[in-house]
Order: sequence, then C-alpha cells, then structure tokens
Amino acid sequence: MIILGIDPGTATTGYGVIKIPDDILGREFNYDIELVTYGNISTPKDKLMQDRLDMIYRQLNSVIEKYKPDQMVCEMLFFGSNTKTAIMVGQARGVIMLAASQHRVPFTDYTGPQIKLMVAGSGRADKNQVHDGVRRFLGTPGRRRSKLKVNWKGGHLDDATDALAIAICHVLKLAAK
Amino acid sequence: MIILGIDPGTATTGYGVIKIPDDILGREFNYDIELVTYGNISTPKDKLMQDRLDMIYRQLNSVIEKYKPDQMVCEMLFFGSNTKTAIMVGQARGVIMLAASQHRVPFTDYTGPQIKLMVAGSGRADKNQVHDGVRRFLGTPGRRRSKLKVNWKGGHLDDATDALAIAICHVLKLAAK
Repeated sequence: MIILGIDPGTATTGYGVIKIPDDILGREFNYDIELVTYGNISTPKDKLMQDRLDMIYRQLNSVIEKYKPDQMVCEMLFFGSNTKTAIMVGQARGVIMLAASQHRVPFTDYTGPQIKLMVAGSGRADKNQVHDGVRRFLGTPGRRRSKLKVNWKGGHLDDATDALAIAICHVLKLAAK
Repeated sequence: MIILGIDPGTATTGYGVIKIPDDILGREFNYDIELVTYGNISTPKDKLMQDRLDMIYRQLNSVIEKYKPDQMVCEMLFFGSNTKTAIMVGQARGVIMLAASQHRVPFTDYTGPQIKLMVAGSGRADKNQVHDGVRRFLGTPGRRRSKLKVNWKGGHLDDATDALAIAICHVLKLAAK
C-alpha cells in the first residue's frame, strides 16, 4: 500500500511517499515502512496566488500519477490558528483535495498535535523531536528499506519531512485500527 | 466586459454574472449594468469534502465556459474570522482560484466590509441593505437591462445575491480607478 503524505502551503507544499504491507491492520510495529520518495513543491512569491495554486495542483497531479498512492493524508490546521494562515493553507488544501477526488484516492487528515503525538510521543513535541521520530520510523535497522538518502539537515526539507511525519501518523493509525 | 462575482462556500457557492461597457473607466455612474445570470452551486452535506470541492470546481468551470467572463471577483474573509470557517472558505477559494488561473481570467478579491461600503454605503451594512443596494444598481429605470427576474425574496438566493454584490463592488472600483 502506497501512502502519500502532504504538508500544505502556498509557498512550499511538502510531500512524502511511503510503502507499507497491505495486511498492516493489527500488526502493531511488526512491519517495514519503505521510503519511496519525498520532495517540495515550491512556488515563486512574485507570481499571482491563483497561478501558484495551479503550480501546486499540476505538480501534485504528477506525483500522484507517478507513484499511484492508495491513500492521501494531509495536515489539518487546528482551531485557534491565525485567520490569514487558515485561508492560505485552506486554499492549498482545496487544490490538494481536488486532486485526490479527481484521482479517486481516499483522503484523510490529522491536526498537528495528533501527528506529533503519534510520531514523537507528545502532542507538544517540537520540530526536532518530530524529525527524530520520522528518522526512527524510517531508519531503524530491519525496518530500513529506503532507496533514498534523507538529507535530514537540509532546512528546505522541513516541509517534506513534515509530510513524511503525516504519512507515518496515518500508518500508525491504520495498524492500530 | 463580463464580470463573474463569486461568494465562496463549501455548502453553497453563489455566482452572479453582469455585463458592463468596456470603456467604463472614469464614467462614474453614467453606464448600464446588465444582469446576465446568477445561481448557486450547492453540494450535499453527506458527500466527502474533496468530492464537494470537485463539484464546485466542475460547475464553476461550466459557468466560465458558458459566459466567458473577462474578470472574476471573489469575497475574501477578513482577519479575525473563525479558524474553521477560514479553512472551509479557503478550500472553496482554492478551487475557484484554480479555475480562474486555468482559464486565464484575472482574479480580484474584496473583503465583506469593502463590498458593503461600495454597494450599500457602509462597511457595516446588514444583509438587507446590501440586497437593496444590488437591487438599486441592477434595477434603476434606464439602467435595467436584465433578461432575468431576480427573485429577491428567495432565501436560497442569498449567496447568489451576495455574488452579485461582489461583482458590482468590482464595477464601481473599475469605474472610479
């Protein structure tokens, strides 16, 4: 089963693709998570917002068509966020959800605290703890099947790493259901 | 010049199409506004959100292809709105802006208070005052060129009337520039 995690944003939308066994339900931690790919869709600030959304939509469609995810997972802002941020993230989420619907890929979302809790053990974990969690889930001996080297220090990879955290959160939920 | 005004929402997205002279700049109020059409795109509550966004996207594309607007105008939430509302409206705005970009139609937005100020004379005007303003701009003798009867009392037409208010706000800005 292929899971596509997405960290939505108009400046940068991060994505991460992982592969898990189809029979994951009830297997707890007794399975491998394979890292397939990850990356960022960045859009130039001097472009019009509608054209930046179109860039996100087109590039995400390419990712979906290339990796054929069985499920898509996205971050949901939790309540109390700044209105301007909520509108901007909402606009990016709109075109992401549209791409999911058009490719008939089931779509799920989790809030930041839910993702932090699942991946780093605490809903209030900081960015480093979440990235450590991602590294642990994808990098434990016997679990590592990555074809890719993750450049964990690359600052611009933050969004892609968050996208992987979102995908891993969904895997843990699927295994525990 | 054809203007498509849009009041974005996931349950109901209202739209209104009006026609104005191409040489409107500097003509103040000395021009006719022709009402071309108006309507609502409603989506069922029991459908998945991504599929509802796809319905809005497809139906809006049909409106754009049928009426070929030269400009699209949408409402922008102003800051201080509820986060959940902002995300939901943002998602609808995302697919609307995508449709604008894909059809290469220039896209503009105004906040509620801006629209109320232009159409009803006060940024704090209530719904009835805004609807009176729309009726006045589209219905004044000598100005009326409407092929359609506007059912001003139809409750479900609220969103379409708001969409017309958004389009009229843009016309007044264009004439005054």
